[in-house]
Amino acid sequence: MVKPEAVDLAKSYLLLNHGPVTLVSSAHGDRRNVMAAAWAMPLDFDPPKLAVVIDSLTLTRELVEASGEFVINIPARAIADKVLAVGSQSGRDGDKFVSCAIGSRPASKVAAPLIDGCVGWLECRLIPEAHNQTRYDLFIAEVVAAWADPRVFSDGRWNFADEALRTMHYVAGGNFFATGEAFAV
Amino acid sequence: MVKPEAVDLAKSYLLLNHGPVTLVSSAHGDRRNVMAAAWAMPLDFDPPKLAVVIDSLTLTRELVEASGEFVINIPARAIADKVLAVGSQSGRDGDKFVSCAIGSRPASKVAAPLIDGCVGWLECRLIPEAHNQTRYDLFIAEVVAAWADPRVFSDGRWNFADEALRTMHYVAGGNFFATGEAFAV
Repeated sequence: MVKPEAVDLAKSYLLLNHGPVTLVSSAHGDRRNVMAAAWAMPLDFDPPKLAVVIDSLTLTRELVEASGEFVINIPARAIADKVLAVGSQSGRDGDKFVSCAIGSRPASKVAAPLIDGCVGWLECRLIPEAHNQTRYDLFIAEVVAAWADPRVFSDGRWNFADEALRTMHYVAGGNFFATGEAFAV
Repeated sequence: MVKPEAVDLAKSYLLLNHGPVTLVSSAHGDRRNVMAAAWAMPLDFDPPKLAVVIDSLTLTRELVEASGEFVINIPARAIADKVLAVGSQSGRDGDKFVSCAIGSRPASKVAAPLIDGCVGWLECRLIPEAHNQTRYDLFIAEVVAAWADPRVFSDGRWNFADEALRTMHYVAGGNFFATGEAFAV
C-alpha cells in the first residue's frame, strides 16, 4: 500500500464531496471496529465538518459514542468485496479486521485506524449532539486530519487513471457504481 | 420530457443513495427558486427522510423556512451546464427559471416544482430543527412523494443505458464525475 499523504484541511471536503461510499473505523480501549456507511456528506468547509448516519444497534455506534472519535475512510473499488463484507457483519460477533482480512495503520490524531485499500481518510472528532444522535442516528464531527493516496488524489484533485483505485457509490444489495468519467462545464 | 412515474416511498432512498449532485427547488407565495446542492443524503428508510445543507444567505433558505417544503431533484448529465448555472447565481438577482431556461412541472404534495431534465424527484416536508438549521445550515425533511424517469429508474433499479441521462457527482469549480459502471459483489 502506498503511504498516505497529508491533505490540507481546507481541501479535505473534496474527498467526500462526490458522494462515495465510506467505511467508518472506530476504536475505544482495546476494542476496534469498521462498518460501511453510504450516508455520509460534508457539512462545512472551514473548519471542515461532516455528517454520517450510524445505526443505534452497531458496535461502531458504541465505540464512537465512548471515544468521541472515528475515521471516515474512502475505499477503492479493489476492496468492494470487503466493503460489502464489513457492511454485512456485526463487530459484536467477532473482530471484522480478522474475519474480513482488513489491514490498517495508525491515524495521527484519533485512536481509530486508517483502513488499507482506501484512497482517502478523514480523521474526525465528534461534535456531541445528543438530539441528532438519538432521534436520527446522525453524527456530526469536525475533520481534524486528512490523508489521501497520492496516486489518485493530489493537489486537491482526483485522478482515477487506475480503474482499481476508483471510488464507489453504493446502491443496495451489493450493487455499486464506480465513480465514472470526469467532465467540466 | 418523459412523464415522471411514481416511486414507492420505501424505495425512494435509492434515488439519492449513490450520492448524486442535486437541485433544491422551492416556492412560497409568488416566489420560487432552484439551487444546486451536493451535500444531501438519505437519513432514514421508513418513513423516508433526508438531510441537505442549505446556506443561510440563499433565497432557497428563505423559501424553505417560510414554506416548510422543497423538492430534491436529481439532474441528468444532459443539464450539467444548468446545474452549474443555478449554483452560480442567486435567486435574489432574478428568477433563475427564466435566466437559466429551467422548465418545471407541478409536484403532487408540495408547492415547489419538479425540475425538467432531472431523472429523480423527492418531494419533501421539512422537519423543523431550529438548532441544526441555525448552527449547521442542516435541514432534515420527510420524503412525502417520489418520482423517477422510467427510462433510467424503474422497479427500484437504476439503468443508465443512455449516457446523457446518467446522474452526476459534484467535485468543485464546475468539475463533475458521471455515475460510472454498475457492478455487484
